[in-house]
Order: sequence, then C-alpha cells, then structure tokens
Amino acid sequence: MSVDRTLHHFPLDPFSREVRLVLGEKRLRFTEVAERYWEQPETLAALNPSGLPPVLVELRPGERLVVCESRAILEYLDERYADPALLSNHDVAERVEARRLLHWFDRKFDYEVNSLVLHEKMEKRLLGLGAPDLTALRAGRQALRAHLTHLEGLLNNRDWLAGARMSLADIAGGAHLSVVDYFGEVPWEDFPATRLWYSKMKSRPCFRPLLNDRYPGLQPASHYDDLDF
Amino acid sequence: MSVDRTLHHFPLDPFSREVRLVLGEKRLRFTEVAERYWEQPETLAALNPSGLPPVLVELRPGERLVVCESRAILEYLDERYADPALLSNHDVAERVEARRLLHWFDRKFDYEVNSLVLHEKMEKRLLGLGAPDLTALRAGRQALRAHLTHLEGLLNNRDWLAGARMSLADIAGGAHLSVVDYFGEVPWEDFPATRLWYSKMKSRPCFRPLLNDRYPGLQPASHYDDLDF
Repeated sequence: MSVDRTLHHFPLDPFSREVRLVLGEKRLRFTEVAERYWEQPETLAALNPSGLPPVLVELRPGERLVVCESRAILEYLDERYADPALLSNHDVAERVEARRLLHWFDRKFDYEVNSLVLHEKMEKRLLGLGAPDLTALRAGRQALRAHLTHLEGLLNNRDWLAGARMSLADIAGGAHLSVVDYFGEVPWEDFPATRLWYSKMKSRPCFRPLLNDRYPGLQPASHYDDLDF
Repeated sequence: MSVDRTLHHFPLDPFSREVRLVLGEKRLRFTEVAERYWEQPETLAALNPSGLPPVLVELRPGERLVVCESRAILEYLDERYADPALLSNHDVAERVEARRLLHWFDRKFDYEVNSLVLHEKMEKRLLGLGAPDLTALRAGRQALRAHLTHLEGLLNNRDWLAGARMSLADIAGGAHLSVVDYFGEVPWEDFPATRLWYSKMKSRPCFRPLLNDRYPGLQPASHYDDLDF
C-alpha cells in the first residue's frame, strides 16, 4: 500500500535526528520539511500543540495519521514497521535497557549537555543571542565527559548500547552525540569503546543524510563527516 | 507464577506516582521502598545509574529484572500485564495520542510547571533551600494555566485524555496534577472539564494510596483527598 509520508524536522535537532535515523534504518521514504521552530511557525503548531519538531504525517487511503514528539514516533515506527526491529523483537531485558537509555538521552543528556553545549553553540546563533557563555559551556563539557564515561562502561561489555543487538538506544545515542560532534565537542580520544561504537553507527546508510547536513553560518567540525575520525 | 516485586519511589515524585497508578490499575502487589533521592542513596544508584526513582525490581525463579525510569516501567508493565490495557490494545491513533501526551507531561509539563512550582514549594523544603521565590512561582502558575487550557480543550471533546479509553496519558496527567494539587496550586474552578476528569481519576482505587500520602512537614491542601472537591 502506498503511503505518503512527510517529516517535519530541524536538521540539527537531536530529537528530529532520532526519527530520521529510524526512517533510514527501516528504509522508509519520506518528504522532508525543515522547520525553523524558534520562529514558531503556525503550520507546525497546527500539527503539534507543543510547536516543536519532529512531527511525522502519514497519509493512506482513508487515513491521515499525525505523530508528534520523537519518542512517540520511534515507538510507532517500530510497532508498524517491524523490520528491522529496534525494540519490538528484543527480549525483555534488552527492551527495558533500551528504554532506560532512551530516557537517559532524551532527558538527562538533554538537560545536562544539550541545554548547555547546544544552547551556547547553536541556539544562541540561531536566535541572535550573542557569544557563548564560557562558564556554561565548561559545565556542559564536564557533564558530557560524565555521560561518555557511562557509555564507555556499557560499551566495554556490549556490542550495542542496550546489549547484543542494535536498538532505539543506539539511535538516540547516535542522534544526540552527532549534533554535539557537529560542533566538535566530543573528546573521542578518551573514550575508545564509544568511538568504535560511533564509527559503526556513522558507517550505516541511515547516518549518511545526517553527515551531509550543513546549516548556513554554522560549519561542522572538520572530522564531522569523516568515517575514519 | 509468584513474582516478588519492589518499587523504589518517592511519594511526592510525579514520575514515581505514574508507576504506582499503573501498578494499582493492574492490581499488581508490590513492596514499597521510599527513597530520599536528593540524599543520593547508594542503594538507589546501584539500581539506576541516574540515581533517580522510580525503579521497579521483579524477582522470579531464575530471573531478576530491574526496570529504571518511569516511561520504561510504564511501557514494560503494559506489555507484560496487558489487563487492563492502557496502551497495548488501543488503536493506532489513540496510542500515538497517548504517547504524545506522555511526552507532554514528562517533558513539557515537568520543565514548565514542576521545575518552578514543585521546586519552589517542595524541593526547596526538602533540600533546606529557604523560602519560595515568588517570581518563579508566578511563572510556574502561569504555565500551569496554559497547560490546563490545553487539557480542557481535549476534555471538552473526549472522555479520556487520549480518546475514548483510559490510557497511560491519563495516568501521567493524574500523577503530575496530583502532586501540584497536594500543594493546592491547581485552579480547578476555571477548568470544569478537567476537574470532572480528575474527579473520575481520583475515585479509582489506584488513586487511593496517593491520596493517603502525607509527607512530614509538608501538609496537603485541605481538598487534596476530597473526592467531591
């Protein structure tokens, strides 16, 4: 059955990237609409009351489905398009661990790292709020090292973040770290297991569109799209 | 099969309350361990790397399952104990809408309301940080009215938050609003549809333990446990 699929997203939004990675991993074609969400576009607010990307719209004969917020979209896609399974076929302990890590990235990493590092280096530029505050940036970098230490501990004992199989946890980790990496903020050299895992993620076809992202006025770090970084 | 089930939680934590409500709704018995999470107990950190409640531990012959973070616990419980279904048997549009609202409460409501209202009225007391900041409290109250306006719009057209059936969205809404209501901060009189919905929630057996919560030094509003408020 033919599905007309549209993703409303912002290229450097980690939550939008989670959805793009899952769509890529499942080889689902979609039309992109890039949203400058900080300008509060009415079209976006009409789809999602929070006014934020990502929003996925799927049209089928007799059905118009609007799916708002990254976690809802991820769970929806994995239930509806089970191949490859990123959660739905995993055993209970891996599902539970993957969802712990989804929460970790989407709340804890977002609060402690993105809200400092990305706010200072990206959002202030987009919003015209002036130069980064170095104290805030330093606090964000310190939090990032604590997060990487946690991931390194996991990846010293596992092939993928939640266990033996790739899952939504890897999608979330790849999405969040890739944006921080765009700004050259990930100290890969100190976290070899995490670096190896990220190089596996980066080599997947689903990652290619993310590595091609270039936002006007915000150049990525030189190694950003280098598979052998 | 007998399951030895323990919930590590904090009585006035909205995320912990989500789990208590689902356990109650599904009539699953559990042992409670109340955690003073702000004192960073090592036993809790050993279960959950984030150091936060809620954490659910289930022991079966040959299986020890530790489920961390509210959303992971909610999804786990609804998959494993499907009766009554709070998501797993709902149609796709209601599932998607319930998960949009889970995100709404756990991120947007938490950022915009809890981090101001509960921080000023509860966390500062627990942490010994002094008197509430009235400017912050006012901003939180204003955000709460915006949230209630969104809920009122939904409940003018639906029996339950996500549609025709009770779902995890109602659990999340009930959990978050009940803590704000403990502190007497919900202007129910201006939101009649939301008040009616909350009175339905409050009357369910799963809500009774929450209404019996009393935290030393933090008295609830006089109407807090009144079913006819």
